[in-house]
Amino acid sequence: MSATGSEGALERVREADLAAFCREVLAFAGADLETADAATRAMLHASRLGVDSHGVRLLDHYVRVLRGGRVNGTPMLRFDRADKPVAMLDADHAHGARATYAAMERACLAARRYGIGAVGIRNSSHFGAAGAYALAAAEVGLIGLVVCNSDAFVRLHGGAERFHGTNPIAAAAPSGSGRPWLLDMATSAIPYNRIVLHRSLARPLPEGTASTESGEDTEEPDLAAMLAPLGGAFGYKGAGLAGLVEILSALLTGMGTSAELLPMTGPDLSTPRGLGAFVLAIDPQAFVGRTEFEAGMRRYVAALRGSAPAEGARVLAPGDREWEEAENRARLGIPIDPHSLEAFRRLSEELGVPPPASIQR
Amino acid sequence: MSATGSEGALERVREADLAAFCREVLAFAGADLETADAATRAMLHASRLGVDSHGVRLLDHYVRVLRGGRVNGTPMLRFDRADKPVAMLDADHAHGARATYAAMERACLAARRYGIGAVGIRNSSHFGAAGAYALAAAEVGLIGLVVCNSDAFVRLHGGAERFHGTNPIAAAAPSGSGRPWLLDMATSAIPYNRIVLHRSLARPLPEGTASTESGEDTEEPDLAAMLAPLGGAFGYKGAGLAGLVEILSALLTGMGTSAELLPMTGPDLSTPRGLGAFVLAIDPQAFVGRTEFEAGMRRYVAALRGSAPAEGARVLAPGDREWEEAENRARLGIPIDPHSLEAFRRLSEELGVPPPASIQR
Repeated sequence: MSATGSEGALERVREADLAAFCREVLAFAGADLETADAATRAMLHASRLGVDSHGVRLLDHYVRVLRGGRVNGTPMLRFDRADKPVAMLDADHAHGARATYAAMERACLAARRYGIGAVGIRNSSHFGAAGAYALAAAEVGLIGLVVCNSDAFVRLHGGAERFHGTNPIAAAAPSGSGRPWLLDMATSAIPYNRIVLHRSLARPLPEGTASTESGEDTEEPDLAAMLAPLGGAFGYKGAGLAGLVEILSALLTGMGTSAELLPMTGPDLSTPRGLGAFVLAIDPQAFVGRTEFEAGMRRYVAALRGSAPAEGARVLAPGDREWEEAENRARLGIPIDPHSLEAFRRLSEELGVPPPASIQR
Repeated sequence: MSATGSEGALERVREADLAAFCREVLAFAGADLETADAATRAMLHASRLGVDSHGVRLLDHYVRVLRGGRVNGTPMLRFDRADKPVAMLDADHAHGARATYAAMERACLAARRYGIGAVGIRNSSHFGAAGAYALAAAEVGLIGLVVCNSDAFVRLHGGAERFHGTNPIAAAAPSGSGRPWLLDMATSAIPYNRIVLHRSLARPLPEGTASTESGEDTEEPDLAAMLAPLGGAFGYKGAGLAGLVEILSALLTGMGTSAELLPMTGPDLSTPRGLGAFVLAIDPQAFVGRTEFEAGMRRYVAALRGSAPAEGARVLAPGDREWEEAENRARLGIPIDPHSLEAFRRLSEELGVPPPASIQR
């Protein structure tokens, strides 16, 4: 999941130092405390678990959109219903992390009371790694599910134009002790970053994962104009899952579908993008009971990890790779790619915020 | 989705005649009226839409399990909570269709009142096509989601043993006028039937869809001992989705995981299998509002159908292929494969039920 092939050579920074830096930079860029905390928490979730595409690399982007006016650094979040299992949140063009953590917290409160809780989010923005919010539910003993659409970059099955975003599905479930079961997947065959990476390495793409402008499969990263949906020859499944994400995150909330969204990367960084998202929390206590559920999860995850591997392969439970990486990074620090390092130095100067401690050395 | 490559040669029967025959056979085999109705409705859903693997082909199997005692033809369904958004249903070893239609009806009632409703099902059995129950929600204006595990036949990503079932995910959403958006997909790369079909046709399997006993990829149907998870080289996504299905359908309900289930096909047809399942209904009225949601769905589905196709390909919305097939079959009748035809004749004689009208000619 790392964006580079040679992490060893990268500068590494302690998580706590990075978090302090991100919070301070965001605050100086106009974010209120809740926004700075939430965006930092979401970026650090990704950076900690090795999902560098959604990690602190995004800090510079988030500063740009706060300054540009696309993202409201001091939003007034409004839930439309009190004391019901479902609600709509108008996020007032908040940072996606601010909106989505708040929505999941609300869904979790509802789930504790009613067994299930769901929040549809309106007028939000890029939220980083969907898994961050699913994990927030699992950390309080609930099953969490999170979906969000994004600007179009994935063709349909049999299609020849960008139609869906990479439209992630994230889910997490507590397993009593140890680390939650955690799935965070794009419904595209590969992430867009993979194309960028393979371009820079001049390495062919895996078969059936990307297409040219005319919708033909290509393994040549320079010709890749769009991603294929998950599933290769059975790409109608990936496209269907991406559609389910559209339905829950955009159509149920009255926001734009992927093809209707302004691109994340600009050039317009001042118009709010009006992103929708959807979060769901389920309390096992209202079903089989928490104790029995978590015992079942432990049995299931142990069976997963113990399942016979193919020769030369390894079997992992969803999240295992990420939790391993988190252990490495807790010990060694979080690797910062050269581009982000340069951005940190620039932000540090511009805003008068000291750079993260280990970079100062 | 049809199990044979040469439907033209098959005997075709009118849907209404088939339905009457199925109901009567099931009743004579010991099913109460609700069970006979529900099982027939589920089989006809699949036979109508061209998903013949889950269609009336299953009638003979259902008679066997009713007679064998695995399935209780006169169950007492018990919901554990009245008047809450969530409930557990103890299905008393009912036919899966009887249990799951009842659960979805309950979830829909809850969704109307609370915006969302979910039911975890215990002690159920094979329910056929998951899409039947998701569609039941869409037909009353709600978003439906249905998952169920099944006996292990799919390896993990990097795995070399059968671990998950084909663990389907079905979802449906109303689009105001016309046919609902309908997704019904196994989380395996291909359905098991595809192996059986390619074996009989001596045709190689698509790449990366099946494995030998030792977990190596094979395109040779005779060597295929298990299916691959959806996603090929990115099979951790298919395996992760299958895991989400286990969590909701088995672990949340306290039922067995795929690897713990008795095989659907026997030889033991007397011991109840104790299947779990999970259904969810969402009322758009509690979010953006029904009118706006359905207008959005129409806009989205029209954009799907109008998206540029690759050369020689066709772009379809989820369900379109099935609705087209349903139109054909309404006109031409439902094709019955020779094996099922023979079973119908045998059941007809054994139970003293007249065969479907068009077969009598």
